[in-house]
Amino acid sequence: MDDVVIKYVTRKPRLNKPIFIEGLPGIGNVGKLAAEHLIEELNAKKFVEIYCKDFPPQVFINRDGTIKLVNNELYYWKAKKKRQKDLIILTGDYQGLSSEGQYELSDKILDIVESLGAKQIFTLGGYGLGREIEKPRVLGAATSRELVKKLKKHGVVFRENEPGGGIIGASGLLIGLGKLRGMEGACFMGETPGYLVDPRSAEVVLRVLTKILNIDISFSELQKKAEEIEYIAEQLKELESLSKKGEERKDIDYIG
Amino acid sequence: MDDVVIKYVTRKPRLNKPIFIEGLPGIGNVGKLAAEHLIEELNAKKFVEIYCKDFPPQVFINRDGTIKLVNNELYYWKAKKKRQKDLIILTGDYQGLSSEGQYELSDKILDIVESLGAKQIFTLGGYGLGREIEKPRVLGAATSRELVKKLKKHGVVFRENEPGGGIIGASGLLIGLGKLRGMEGACFMGETPGYLVDPRSAEVVLRVLTKILNIDISFSELQKKAEEIEYIAEQLKELESLSKKGEERKDIDYIG
Amino acid sequence: MDDVVIKYVTRKPRLNKPIFIEGLPGIGNVGKLAAEHLIEELNAKKFVEIYCKDFPPQVFINRDGTIKLVNNELYYWKAKKKRQKDLIILTGDYQGLSSEGQYELSDKILDIVESLGAKQIFTLGGYGLGREIEKPRVLGAATSRELVKKLKKHGVVFRENEPGGGIIGASGLLIGLGKLRGMEGACFMGETPGYLVDPRSAEVVLRVLTKILNIDISFSELQKKAEEIEYIAEQLKELESLSKKGEERKDIDYIG
Amino acid sequence: MDDVVIKYVTRKPRLNKPIFIEGLPGIGNVGKLAAEHLIEELNAKKFVEIYCKDFPPQVFINRDGTIKLVNNELYYWKAKKKRQKDLIILTGDYQGLSSEGQYELSDKILDIVESLGAKQIFTLGGYGLGREIEKPRVLGAATSRELVKKLKKHGVVFRENEPGGGIIGASGLLIGLGKLRGMEGACFMGETPGYLVDPRSAEVVLRVLTKILNIDISFSELQKKAEEIEYIAEQLKELESLSKKGEERKDIDYIG
Repeated sequence: MDDVVIKYVTRKPRLNKPIFIEGLPGIGNVGKLAAEHLIEELNAKKFVEIYCKDFPPQVFINRDGTIKLVNNELYYWKAKKKRQKDLIILTGDYQGLSSEGQYELSDKILDIVESLGAKQIFTLGGYGLGREIEKPRVLGAATSRELVKKLKKHGVVFRENEPGGGIIGASGLLIGLGKLRGMEGACFMGETPGYLVDPRSAEVVLRVLTKILNIDISFSELQKKAEEIEYIAEQLKELESLSKKGEERKDIDYIG
Repeated sequence: MDDVVIKYVTRKPRLNKPIFIEGLPGIGNVGKLAAEHLIEELNAKKFVEIYCKDFPPQVFINRDGTIKLVNNELYYWKAKKKRQKDLIILTGDYQGLSSEGQYELSDKILDIVESLGAKQIFTLGGYGLGREIEKPRVLGAATSRELVKKLKKHGVVFRENEPGGGIIGASGLLIGLGKLRGMEGACFMGETPGYLVDPRSAEVVLRVLTKILNIDISFSELQKKAEEIEYIAEQLKELESLSKKGEERKDIDYIG
Repeated sequence: MDDVVIKYVTRKPRLNKPIFIEGLPGIGNVGKLAAEHLIEELNAKKFVEIYCKDFPPQVFINRDGTIKLVNNELYYWKAKKKRQKDLIILTGDYQGLSSEGQYELSDKILDIVESLGAKQIFTLGGYGLGREIEKPRVLGAATSRELVKKLKKHGVVFRENEPGGGIIGASGLLIGLGKLRGMEGACFMGETPGYLVDPRSAEVVLRVLTKILNIDISFSELQKKAEEIEYIAEQLKELESLSKKGEERKDIDYIG
Repeated sequence: MDDVVIKYVTRKPRLNKPIFIEGLPGIGNVGKLAAEHLIEELNAKKFVEIYCKDFPPQVFINRDGTIKLVNNELYYWKAKKKRQKDLIILTGDYQGLSSEGQYELSDKILDIVESLGAKQIFTLGGYGLGREIEKPRVLGAATSRELVKKLKKHGVVFRENEPGGGIIGASGLLIGLGKLRGMEGACFMGETPGYLVDPRSAEVVLRVLTKILNIDISFSELQKKAEEIEYIAEQLKELESLSKKGEERKDIDYIG
């Protein structure tokens, strides 16, 4: 068995200079939420399943009792209008567990998208701030100054020393390894507290991305998810404040 | 030395569409207990020893002072009656230590059982609840909806979101990778507190499995083991309650 | 660079059915102390250096300021008398860090000693008891019942369930993998508290081994080392008791 | 993708028996600071970028918003005067994460520098003392007694049992593996508290190295960095002492 197994579930699609978009699990699950929402809204078609020895040895159980071996998946979407581009979208259950696996996976995935004509990569992720945010911004990093300039015009924020540690994982590696192959690329990072999955951050990332891609999609499903999460977050806060009051109560009893 | 070493200890057996059954160490040791009991009751014959760099570098010492390098083993059993099927049974000392080793081992083992004609896989394991159970159920997951339907008739329970994290380790991987090869498969998970080895859970798993396989075996040895474990568990509880009383005693002394 | 690099520092020696003896770092450093003492007393000749990616990336600094890349080494000794056998002795700075490295190293080393005609392996180690011992015994484990019987006559002790977890590391793996190649082997484990390096345990192991090998060596150097260690151990105990008294003193001050 | 990817960014330079110098991240960052300063002062030219699966899967973000995949880099410098030698200088963002990666990287880098004619290696690092130092010394270790003798004349200090654990990482491995190839080498270790990056220690290391290499460079940039660090260190100390006083204050309040 190869370290990375590429399984085509349809014929190799013919695409016209597609743009490659990545959204895998990470901080706030921002990238994965964004990529999945894009796939759903565009009704993109799955054409490759990727299995890897560096994913956990795990199957998930679907609602109907059937199993699914954990994987990554590639979807494609063909442009409908003149100013749009064909897309390849990557999402999945996990990133590689080890450094070596991460490099191996990114390299194999770049092989596929390059063979389909992709020359541009946009990776999506979260930028964890560890605090509540009024209005999340979208931070960026790119493979060239020209692209930085272009993205600034679309509202992407470039800040010195943010994120300080650079970009860790597939979102960084794909544009880093892509650059070595002469591909253009950028990473969009939605600010997020990072405590819970963050559909609101995924939305702002997607709003920037779809504007750049000249694509028009609905965000209502993401907004519904955001409301659900906000409800859960409030419940958690209430629980916490109740338990604190309980403790204070105890303190009083104790003192009394 | 190959990462996985396959050593045939007899000639390759000729089997008629055998069913492949797995029971390796895991939660409550349910799978291993069940597989070993089945091997013993059927008097199945060992034909392959599997050594692997991803097992610990360890030998066990037998009662007679001789050593045994830790391994996995394959046994076969030929059907005695018309409605029965030939079996291949996997058990062993360890699962692979790393993710990569797990994939490598499962893949190599599937190579062997496929080359012997196996098209169906049943994996056995425990589902740890972390609490005492009145009557353990057998939960299931399978590679197709048809198989889910069939297994439900035999009393296998399918619950949404149970187990929540899916199936981790060889029991999941073998049916997951098997499915990619076009093999049919299911995992039977006996509910277990998960604190101690659990022969009672192994028994309920085996009762379901043997009914499906039209095999009639005695469970008295498993029941004897279950009684031994229950005796040990009670001793442990008594010890615990004694030590608690001791502590209360101390508290009184202290206060007094 | 290969995972394991074998470097001959002399011509390959011609040996007559040599016995292969291993003593690498481990509990109480018993095996390494024994192997090094044997090499010194027999004036055995180094002929192979083994370097491995699974050793730490480390050089030691010799007394004269020169460096030594950490390694394992093979020595040989030619029998002087009729009832003696040629020997190959393995010792070194480290065992492999990972499970995979342990298997790889043991396998490569067995390749070498087998190519030199070795058919018998004796591995040396410590059996950590975690308590002081009046008179350390030598426990054993072997590849066959015949060998167990023979070794019992030489005073090697075989106890059911001792050591409970079997033998972990090179001492177990070499006889385990050797057995798969049809080689005979045994492991000698000197009982040791396991807190400090234990030359006394190394001595009892070597006394048994040299009797079996019909070799007559002095143990005075090991005994000197044992005295040094015992002196250090006593110093440590005194320090400890002093610091305890100091604490009691403090308690008194505090109360007073 | 190979485990180690060597990317020439210029034509392979023609060098005359160059000396290979290494300075990678480590204790006090002494080696990296020294190598980077040397590169800057000599205006050495980058000719190789090294990417490796054993580096973290990470890109850094430059000040202008562009990215850089983490790597190691080789620079060369051609001798300007008669008594000087051509140089190859290695620096980078990380050392290999695993033992195996460290060996693999060092081996591949030695392949390159050997192919360019290098026969001598000087590696630079820090020797962490865990305490403040008045005047840091430069400790050494070398591949031969002759070199030890030569280096002593240049003020390199050789002390028995210092550093006790030998040299861990690329600085040790490169001269250790180099020695196996018949290359001459030495490691220079600047004493450092090891708490913060230490340009002062890097300076003393470079002063010794440049004297040996007959190279004349300015140290003012390193000295500026040292002043910055000393300023930061003082700020930290003040902060600490303030917070201690605060605590004492609290204690008083509490008592009062």
